[in-house]
Parts: sequence; structure tokens; C-alpha cells
Amino acid sequence: MTELTDAEKEFVERVKPLLKEYKEMCKKAGYEQPAAGSYVLSERGKIYHGVPFDWGTCGERNAIGTLVTEETKMSKLEMVLVVGGPEEIIMPCGECRQAIYMWGVENATVLCSNYDLTRIEKFTINKLYPYPYRGGG
Amino acid sequence: MTELTDAEKEFVERVKPLLKEYKEMCKKAGYEQPAAGSYVLSERGKIYHGVPFDWGTCGERNAIGTLVTEETKMSKLEMVLVVGGPEEIIMPCGECRQAIYMWGVENATVLCSNYDLTRIEKFTINKLYPYPYRGGG
Amino acid sequence: MTELTDAEKEFVERVKPLLKEYKEMCKKAGYEQPAAGSYVLSERGKIYHGVPFDWGTCGERNAIGTLVTEETKMSKLEMVLVVGGPEEIIMPCGECRQAIYMWGVENATVLCSNYDLTRIEKFTINKLYPYPYRGGG
Amino acid sequence: MTELTDAEKEFVERVKPLLKEYKEMCKKAGYEQPAAGSYVLSERGKIYHGVPFDWGTCGERNAIGTLVTEETKMSKLEMVLVVGGPEEIIMPCGECRQAIYMWGVENATVLCSNYDLTRIEKFTINKLYPYPYRGGG
Repeated sequence: MTELTDAEKEFVERVKPLLKEYKEMCKKAGYEQPAAGSYVLSERGKIYHGVPFDWGTCGERNAIGTLVTEETKMSKLEMVLVVGGPEEIIMPCGECRQAIYMWGVENATVLCSNYDLTRIEKFTINKLYPYPYRGGG
Repeated sequence: MTELTDAEKEFVERVKPLLKEYKEMCKKAGYEQPAAGSYVLSERGKIYHGVPFDWGTCGERNAIGTLVTEETKMSKLEMVLVVGGPEEIIMPCGECRQAIYMWGVENATVLCSNYDLTRIEKFTINKLYPYPYRGGG
Repeated sequence: MTELTDAEKEFVERVKPLLKEYKEMCKKAGYEQPAAGSYVLSERGKIYHGVPFDWGTCGERNAIGTLVTEETKMSKLEMVLVVGGPEEIIMPCGECRQAIYMWGVENATVLCSNYDLTRIEKFTINKLYPYPYRGGG
Repeated sequence: MTELTDAEKEFVERVKPLLKEYKEMCKKAGYEQPAAGSYVLSERGKIYHGVPFDWGTCGERNAIGTLVTEETKMSKLEMVLVVGGPEEIIMPCGECRQAIYMWGVENATVLCSNYDLTRIEKFTINKLYPYPYRGGG
């Protein structure tokens, strides 16, 4: 695994209590191991959470929607953390890669983890989404 | 116009300062009259805002995504307020009607307004989305 | 049930052999009762079929995509036939209602049937999608 | 540019008259240089065309929808040709990369061209969509 920078480590540390809180809320609501979705870090240093819902809206895009609502379209995401299953990490789908590219800073960091954040793999959006679509067609 | 109930009036009154704040934030960020999206009221009495963004994610679904993230899928929306343009109200699109139906209480209220909330029309989701799709196919 | 016009009856009759052929093809491919999707009739009198696939693309929109490809965006659909399950009819989802409204003639006919076309209910898009979204926001 | 294989060259040659025909149909219908969308080649050797339409349905997914309708979900695409603008090639968006991955053979070829097929760049889906999302979450 590529080593995390200090800023990335700090992001993960800040997500930990939020994720714990989310899991506890779901447990109270009667869920067994809910999909925990994704967390994004904005340029302004705020963290937004999004869970998958509806037909085909993943946690990443749900979280980006909250960022855009709270900070306007002028603000960008710096990092994303995608929370996976008990053992396995989950990669962002194609539509979410497009959204991370569009709403992220230049070459934003994409962290993919298992459910307990004990295993984290680090990517960049350029690596996951090379030769991007830029409109037209 | 069908008259608003007290609960509906209260919802609109609570949205007013939130909408004002959103418009001011956008003005500072350099927007001229941004799309203000929609506000949803959850069963727990909380209000969530969502703006349109990305390709085809409207404010209604963006706001519902935040509700589901913050309150789990066990919570439902009771009312939606769709903020329109300077003069005209805007109706929810078909995909948002499906989402309001799926994530709303029985026959949720849908309020459609102009940009300044000076003109509000009241619907129910049953009226806007009769004979709903319930899965299958 | 509202009675079908001669034009609507003719459309259903033309679909019958196409549906039979589709079911036979699926059977050969190893499907048990596949989702048969929808058929649309264009202004030029051609029929296009679409099955549900991917995440959230229903048969209606798949069929409309073929119509637009084959006849350009200047052509409209006149009728849709949505094929449902063994017993029950299936209604179009909200996103498909929007698409039928946008790509259909004024107040297009929507026929919803069970799997064998032995039970058909007739609607119009105005009835299924009143107070339509017309853009903006 | 990576050199095209004989099979890829043949695919392009087969698309040429189809594209010409499409452009002529659009011209008659009153379009100036319409978006020509994408062509997919199925395992069975058939070519399906799809144009962009609706909110966010690109030509690639429109063409894949026709393939799935015509050949069932058991059939896969082998190659895609994405037709771009007068000068520039266009890359598939993230959502289309996901669809090409899901509905394509192992490491399907993706050809991106300008409007007249005089400039073609060759990719594979593995290159454009590495570390794919495989469901879950």
C-alpha cells in the first residue's frame, strides 16, 4: 500500500468517530451491518457523509451532493473515503469516478477501505479515471 | 390554491431563513440567482436541503439523500418544498416523484413555490404520481 | 377498463408476435420468464423494443433510446406498451413517465399489461404524469 | 496510436456506411452536425448504434441497451466505437465505462474517434476503467 500523507491520516482519524456514530445509529434503527457509504473532505476542511440509496445513487455522489449544497459549486472535494465490506475494500463505480473528477481538486485522493477502516488502499482519481470525459458528444 | 395546514405553514416559515442564508452564501461565492433546489422535512422534524448538481440529480433527490444518511432508511420525509424561479413555480421531475413516493410518508405533501416563497402551490404525491411503480419488471 | 381504439388494438396485435419471438429467444438463452420490457410505437409506425438493464434503465427508456437513434429526435412516440408479470400489470416508474412525456406526442397512450397481454389497462401520459416538469430549476 | 487489429479495422469499415447514413438522415431532419453517439459490436458480429438522449444517457449505454434487447443478457459486446466532434475525439464518461465493463467481453476494445473517423485512438476497458467496481456497498 502506498503510504498515507499526514493530511490523509488525519482525514481517516476524523472519519473514525463519525463512522462509529453512524453504525450505532443504524444498529438502533434495526440494521445489521448497513452499507456505510463514503465520506468526502472539502477544501474548507469539512467532512460530508453519504450513504447509497435509491436506484443507483452511491454514497460518493450522495456525499458530493451535500458538499455542493453546503458550500456551493465553487468548493471542491480534496479526498474521498469509500467504506467497504467486512473484509473487502470497495472501489468507486464509474459514475462516481466521473463525479469525483468533476467535483474534486486536481488529482484528488481516493481512499478505499474495509468496513472497520483497518485496511485502506490509496488511489488518485487520475489513476482510477484516466483520459477523462470532459463533455461534448 | 389549496390552503396550507398549520404544519405546512410552519415548514415554510422554517425554510425562509435557510433559503435566505443559502442565497447569501451563493452571492458571496459569485452566483447570480442560483438554483435553490428543494427542502425536505423528515418525520423527526428536521429539515434537509439539496441543490441540483451533476447530470440529472435534482435538489429533491439530493435532499432525500441527506435525510437517509442522517436518519437511516427507517425515517421518511413528510413534506417537500421545491423552490422555483423568479416568477414561476417548478414541478418535481418524474424521477423525483418516484423518490418522494418511495422515501415519503403515505401521501406526502409537495409544495411548489417561486424563488421568494411568495407564491406556493400545494400538491400531494398521490396527485402528482398516481398508479405508482412498485418494483418488478 | 377503458376500451382500446382500433389503432391501439392494432399496436397490441403487432406486438404479440414480437413478444413471442423475444420470449423464445430468451428461453433458448436459458432464461426462465425474463423481464420483457416495453414496446413503443413511433409516429412513423415503427415498433421499438427495450428491456430493462443496467442500474435503473427500464425497458421504456431503452426502447425510446432506440427510437431516437433510428428516427432522430424529430420523431415522437405515439404509444407505449409496458409488459408486466405473470398476473400483474406493471406501471412505468417516474423517470420513464418523464421520458414518455418528453419523447411522446401530445398525451401519448400508455398501455400496461400482464406478461401474456391477456390483461391490458389503458392510461394517458397526462393522467400518469400531471403538472409535468418542463425544465428549469 | 496503437495499431488496430484486422478485426478492429473491419469494425470501423463496417461502421463507416452506417455513420454516413445516420448523418444523412439527420441532415434531412434538419440537424446541423448531430451528435453521432457510439457503435458497439456484439459477440455475434452485429453492430448496434446508440445516440445520446435524455438527461445523461450517452450513446454507449443507448447502444448497449439495444444489444441486450436484441441478443439477451447472455451476449456481450466486443468493441465500442465512440464518435466525437469535428476535430477532437471524445472519451466515454465514467458511467459508460462501468457499462462497457459490465456488458463487454474480457478487456473489450474501446475506439475513440473524431466525427469523420479520420482519427482513431485505441484503448481497452481495463486501461480506461482499472480496479473496477464489482458490486457491494
